[in-house]
Amino acid sequence: MSPSTSVTFRAIDVIRKKRDGIELSRGEVEALVNAYTKAEIPDYQVSAWLMAVVLRGMTRPETAALTDAMLRSGEVLDLSSLRARKVDKHSTGGVGDKTSLVLAPLAAAAGVAVPMISGRGLGHTGGTLDKLEAIPGFNVNLPVAEFRRVLEVCGCAMIGQTAEIAPADRKLYALRDVTGTVESPYLICASIMSKKLAEGIDALVLDVKTGSGAFMKSEKDAAFLAELMVETGERMGKQVVALITDMDQPLGKMAGNALEVVEVIEVLRGGGPEDLRDLCLELAGWMLHLGGVSKTVAEGKQESAKLISSSKALEKFRQMVELQGGDARVIDDVKRLPQAEHTMQVLSAKAGFVGAIQCEQVGTACVILGGGRERKEDSVDPAVGIVLHKKVGDRVAAGEPLATIHYNAGERAERARQLIEASCVITDAAPSTKRPLIHRVIGKSAERN
Amino acid sequence: MSPSTSVTFRAIDVIRKKRDGIELSRGEVEALVNAYTKAEIPDYQVSAWLMAVVLRGMTRPETAALTDAMLRSGEVLDLSSLRARKVDKHSTGGVGDKTSLVLAPLAAAAGVAVPMISGRGLGHTGGTLDKLEAIPGFNVNLPVAEFRRVLEVCGCAMIGQTAEIAPADRKLYALRDVTGTVESPYLICASIMSKKLAEGIDALVLDVKTGSGAFMKSEKDAAFLAELMVETGERMGKQVVALITDMDQPLGKMAGNALEVVEVIEVLRGGGPEDLRDLCLELAGWMLHLGGVSKTVAEGKQESAKLISSSKALEKFRQMVELQGGDARVIDDVKRLPQAEHTMQVLSAKAGFVGAIQCEQVGTACVILGGGRERKEDSVDPAVGIVLHKKVGDRVAAGEPLATIHYNAGERAERARQLIEASCVITDAAPSTKRPLIHRVIGKSAERN
Repeated sequence: MSPSTSVTFRAIDVIRKKRDGIELSRGEVEALVNAYTKAEIPDYQVSAWLMAVVLRGMTRPETAALTDAMLRSGEVLDLSSLRARKVDKHSTGGVGDKTSLVLAPLAAAAGVAVPMISGRGLGHTGGTLDKLEAIPGFNVNLPVAEFRRVLEVCGCAMIGQTAEIAPADRKLYALRDVTGTVESPYLICASIMSKKLAEGIDALVLDVKTGSGAFMKSEKDAAFLAELMVETGERMGKQVVALITDMDQPLGKMAGNALEVVEVIEVLRGGGPEDLRDLCLELAGWMLHLGGVSKTVAEGKQESAKLISSSKALEKFRQMVELQGGDARVIDDVKRLPQAEHTMQVLSAKAGFVGAIQCEQVGTACVILGGGRERKEDSVDPAVGIVLHKKVGDRVAAGEPLATIHYNAGERAERARQLIEASCVITDAAPSTKRPLIHRVIGKSAERN
Repeated sequence: MSPSTSVTFRAIDVIRKKRDGIELSRGEVEALVNAYTKAEIPDYQVSAWLMAVVLRGMTRPETAALTDAMLRSGEVLDLSSLRARKVDKHSTGGVGDKTSLVLAPLAAAAGVAVPMISGRGLGHTGGTLDKLEAIPGFNVNLPVAEFRRVLEVCGCAMIGQTAEIAPADRKLYALRDVTGTVESPYLICASIMSKKLAEGIDALVLDVKTGSGAFMKSEKDAAFLAELMVETGERMGKQVVALITDMDQPLGKMAGNALEVVEVIEVLRGGGPEDLRDLCLELAGWMLHLGGVSKTVAEGKQESAKLISSSKALEKFRQMVELQGGDARVIDDVKRLPQAEHTMQVLSAKAGFVGAIQCEQVGTACVILGGGRERKEDSVDPAVGIVLHKKVGDRVAAGEPLATIHYNAGERAERARQLIEASCVITDAAPSTKRPLIHRVIGKSAERN
């Protein structure tokens, strides 16, 4: 019997409060995050709390407190020595989303500093780090001092999460991943925003995906998460804007790590698929505007288009690849990128129009080929992937190729083929409506534009 | 990347299903319980699942599957060699609830076999094992073979949970206790029923408490739990009846382990407080009826009263105490029970009527004195406790004693005194209504009586 009445933090009390739907104080949220980061409370208490958060939700002040506590669990980069405004972009993930590789050099070429810390692919979505590593020699594991140096020299640098940044997020994410507690907008918001705000940025452009290939399938859910992240960032004194963008079919035509680098180079050369090019210009317009180099978003888009046609963005990409140890010769000779041994066509069984492409299935097909991860510890094959020849709305003849599979293992290719075949819905008539690329823009900055 | 598609149990899938409110199959519930019992899945996954159960609830088939899986995680006693019907009683716990010590010998004296496996006190409620251990030498840790022998010789035996019975419950309860997942009627039902049905009984009388001293404060919550337990027991082919009984003030006049043994002996001698005596006869009436020794509950009550007035129940108690190693001389000389060093009176500040006694506070006062446990690992002082001189509805004069505190540590006594003083509400007029002792009876057997 302990008759002590001293008031100290008890994890069980915080779990019970959240279970009962009572708002936690900033101090309670901080104490929980700090105790967990220092391993003072066990996984099993935190996972119970996380499940209570998933099912009870969080208020805006709780979400901000959680983000702040996670952010302050590690190092916050001080990039104040850089004169340029620091702007980053973050995507909630999708299939064929390679915009980061275009945007970092493009915004840097315009004079915006882009300190980009990215993640790896998981499940049906790809990851920026895996794409960068398809370039032979490219090092995404720079120490912070080297990251800063590349940023100073080049204006952009792209690395993976370091041990110093938001360690609470790394620990919490690993636990969420195995306890069914990933799917909470509040926890997703805190995870994303704590890492991004630890980069020492002034402004952030969020690309929140919606549609069959996104984590948030419905626009309502996507908008909810977007508003949450924008409000959380603004509470912390940052300029944040969120674009709800379409992920109902793969972005661009290529999915798979080396193949996506090829498409990035196409866009930086002024080519590439229309949807990918348009989205890159839209996001770049916002980055330039929030980075203070263009008065409006429209002006930022025009400037970005110029930086592409003048090859300045491509040269910035080349510089970054070189500074991070990559073989920049791939830019002029994409055959130097990893190549799969075999290809296989996916043919249309009938004539008509592509009515829909079940986007998540295409991502899963890519994982089956070995291009993505089912589990965090899996390694990826950079060479494999899918090239789509048809997008939604395109006319197709019977027996015409819908896609080409690049593969290294035959039985995997066959499973991927069946999945892609099933994912393409062929209709007699052309789809009557076209989904917009940009559904909505959310944030105070959006209201002024 | 593991392209295997073999269908095996994955804890994460079961967690996600429960999180999303989808009913689990019997196989899924069994796999989870079995894997956890064998330590094949970690605490942090099970605690997330438990929190999802607390917030999402369970269907009746899920609750039955959970109970069954927990029951079959260990040994199920086979008492078929005993000719008598085996009947147990279980209480959800309260303050001053010492009925088990009266009922086991009383029902055994009538020819019913009572294989009773009980628990210890936790929080504001007392525990049967702690009360029995107040009798010098009484051994509640009999091996199963010895438990069976006492039962055969005497007709009743009272022990604590063994390592062999429902190990899944022991493991799950320890986890629930530290993760804020105790408070779920479904989990409470599975915990109670899995242990009770492992006793190899034919029938069970449940005493589900309601009121300020109960875990289920409202009658609605108590009835919900009662119905759940009755239905779960009936699904498993047992006769089960639940009495919703009052715990809005302490039961009887004594709270504290040795003091409660004194009151048990008073009842077995034909005396004791009216409410305690009445509740014992009511519960005994049900045990005799379900045990097949009386045609109706009313007949069972009459028979029980006779067994008390003839001292046969008291002699059965004496026999059980002796067989379990206890000093039976305490029955004739209660001064041989542990005695506290000091006593202190709690006086009424004003004249009037006792309008209410906040029952949980009285239980907490008993814990503060050292008579209960805040944590499972605490030890208890058998001698300390509280004797109430007034019950709800009684008239009291200014300065008249409301209660006497039996204590061994002065500063604890003072804290207990303040708590008891605050728990007694003195009103000018007598309370207009009296809460019934038995609120409702639930179960198929109840409908026939």
